Amino acid sequence: MSEPSTYDPRTTGLGPDNALAPGPGGTALAARAAELDRADPLAAVRDRFTMDDTVYLDGNSLGALPTGVLPRLSEVVTREWGELRIRSWEESGWWTAPERIGDRIAPLIGAAPGQVVVGDSTSVNVFKALVAAVRMAPHGRDEILVDAATFPTDGYIAQSAARLTGRTVRAVAAAEIAAEAGARTAVALVNHVDYRTGRLHDLRGVTAALHRAGALAVWDLCHSAGALPVSLDADEVDLAVGCTYKYLNGGPGAPAYLYVRRELQPGFDSPLPGWNSHADPFGMAPGYEPADGAARGRIGTPEILSLLALDAALDVWDGVAVSEVRVKSLGLTDFFLDCVAALAPAGSVEVVTPVAHAARGSQVSLSCAGAAEVMRELTARGVVGDFRRPDVLRFGFTPLYTRYADALRAATVLAAVLEGTA
Amino acid sequence: MSEPSTYDPRTTGLGPDNALAPGPGGTALAARAAELDRADPLAAVRDRFTMDDTVYLDGNSLGALPTGVLPRLSEVVTREWGELRIRSWEESGWWTAPERIGDRIAPLIGAAPGQVVVGDSTSVNVFKALVAAVRMAPHGRDEILVDAATFPTDGYIAQSAARLTGRTVRAVAAAEIAAEAGARTAVALVNHVDYRTGRLHDLRGVTAALHRAGALAVWDLCHSAGALPVSLDADEVDLAVGCTYKYLNGGPGAPAYLYVRRELQPGFDSPLPGWNSHADPFGMAPGYEPADGAARGRIGTPEILSLLALDAALDVWDGVAVSEVRVKSLGLTDFFLDCVAALAPAGSVEVVTPVAHAARGSQVSLSCAGAAEVMRELTARGVVGDFRRPDVLRFGFTPLYTRYADALRAATVLAAVLEGTA
Repeated sequence: MSEPSTYDPRTTGLGPDNALAPGPGGTALAARAAELDRADPLAAVRDRFTMDDTVYLDGNSLGALPTGVLPRLSEVVTREWGELRIRSWEESGWWTAPERIGDRIAPLIGAAPGQVVVGDSTSVNVFKALVAAVRMAPHGRDEILVDAATFPTDGYIAQSAARLTGRTVRAVAAAEIAAEAGARTAVALVNHVDYRTGRLHDLRGVTAALHRAGALAVWDLCHSAGALPVSLDADEVDLAVGCTYKYLNGGPGAPAYLYVRRELQPGFDSPLPGWNSHADPFGMAPGYEPADGAARGRIGTPEILSLLALDAALDVWDGVAVSEVRVKSLGLTDFFLDCVAALAPAGSVEVVTPVAHAARGSQVSLSCAGAAEVMRELTARGVVGDFRRPDVLRFGFTPLYTRYADALRAATVLAAVLEGTA
Repeated sequence: MSEPSTYDPRTTGLGPDNALAPGPGGTALAARAAELDRADPLAAVRDRFTMDDTVYLDGNSLGALPTGVLPRLSEVVTREWGELRIRSWEESGWWTAPERIGDRIAPLIGAAPGQVVVGDSTSVNVFKALVAAVRMAPHGRDEILVDAATFPTDGYIAQSAARLTGRTVRAVAAAEIAAEAGARTAVALVNHVDYRTGRLHDLRGVTAALHRAGALAVWDLCHSAGALPVSLDADEVDLAVGCTYKYLNGGPGAPAYLYVRRELQPGFDSPLPGWNSHADPFGMAPGYEPADGAARGRIGTPEILSLLALDAALDVWDGVAVSEVRVKSLGLTDFFLDCVAALAPAGSVEVVTPVAHAARGSQVSLSCAGAAEVMRELTARGVVGDFRRPDVLRFGFTPLYTRYADALRAATVLAAVLEGTA
């Protein structure tokens, strides 16, 4: 991974529109924020969420609440569970919800219908994907590559998948995976965006390199889906997993999803073949026979309340193009970096997130002394990001509900806190 | 498994109080139902649920809605997610909810605190339990025994666990497991109550037999917990799993639970070591180090909305003794069998469920010709049970909200339907 570097807007690759000069400039920045917010084609989407005076920059950890969730959940509880009860598995469409909601997520990750299924946690889906990938890989390949800076659970689960399938795990930097994949590599598990640094990796290039090496590519989309374009089909990704409680705003612990490329579905051999993935689940046959299609990735009975809350949450995407989201995401993070450069005491923070657009997700990570205390103070003053050990402040920018004025206020409060603690 | 036998109350082992003579007797049965309902110490608990005119006898598949769920879920969505957002992981106790709610289930299954954790589906928990049990079993044991009549997912998952750990699965009738366990047996997976027949198996005796053979016992409590006493600690069970959406009324697909006996926790080596089970989850260390205690059974981020709906649903147990539940369960199923014997056309149904109390769960399964059509007609007439292929009608009796009058009405409608189809 790249080393943190002191932020200097003159060397960042920011577009000329956003290349504001450092300096006090609070008034100019406020005017610029107002202008950007007025011109924002996504501005009205914020009304689809329950927002308040807090500047909420932790949507990369838990997305804000869409206003449609509670009415829908009330209907599910009152009518579907309370009155129809068991009949809802059929009459309310509960049984097929994992595939149906998967097909709602599909366009956000560049997938044609029939390849995404929702359910279980990200960790469980990583396990399914890795074991299935190992089983589909060419004979004799004994190595699973993992992104060395991965969100830890991916690494732990990869170790377990390796142990259970007689393979070994080798951790290499995500940027090196393309070069490191070789004749022993069965599969590589890579994060599209690094959870700590916000670095965006080259999904297309790494996938192509893995394929040239004869290996499969499993991508973790937790920190990219919903924040920037993902093109699973076009980039020929084999399998992918992601969570839905970050940029997809599905609620705390909302179920994750699994993408299995259509051509690979017939060979997808799940290590967790629960009855929900059976070709004839109500046949209750003693022998397992997998369903066709995305349903093959299911396990047991899905947690319907969480699943249907996610379903309602996805309504906020109606009419929203991911390309527009990406434009605003880069605009917000550029502007925040400008504001920090302009307002924060010189040398008080270092920018961890790549400033080049092509390598930046939808978050800005800054490192500073006393970061845990700084984040506590920010939160107390109404600016919510999060802290990652040892010294990282993470600010996630969810374009659907974050305003340029929020980015400025966050930088202003951060500067005040840093001055106080400097 | 036992063969179905034509129901004859004179040979059933029913208590003399309930041994009503077959015959028309509708008036006498109605009087008896009213008397039993008046004397029922659990009668008032029904008010803790949202009930209507339907006779709901499918609580062994999806429990009815407790009235406290929607108010609590509204608070979780509005206040904890909508306002506190990410802060709720700590401030609203989300992070520790899986263990806290596990400790609420513990007394219902005879477990001291600190041994039960809630999360994931039953299938996933069966996988954790079986692989961990194989790893804890004495060296060289190559066989996993499963109940031949098991709910299918247990068998499918056992096959996968065996394949991944280099063991084989052998299916034997639950009643034979005690005798079949031997020097090759690592672990047996047994259902406490058979989902199809309602037969109750000997948890204490089979566990003891497995221990004598040097094997571990994993019990599936899906169809017993909440309906009858379970004594995991006293009966020295090693591991157990169960769902919460049947007799625990946690809602559709509510998360399952895993019990790991305290003495075995230090050796519990999970095949799904997600970050939620790490000793220091926010350390984000690349190496896995398992947490102590029940948390070791966790995987990834729990589905909080479903989890906290379950939490609210468990309030219906306040002041309810499982021993009273069992008394009423046997009373209801006895009375239903009496009513069926008295009202149904002779020879029109056979009783699949054992009539001996010691071998009966909280459901009555009947077989008859055209069972699928019979159940459709029952449902249309407001009596909801379910159908299991090829010819089984299942009627679950949830003592917390089912009345004796409901049992009589179900039998009356069933008799009318059978007369119509005979």
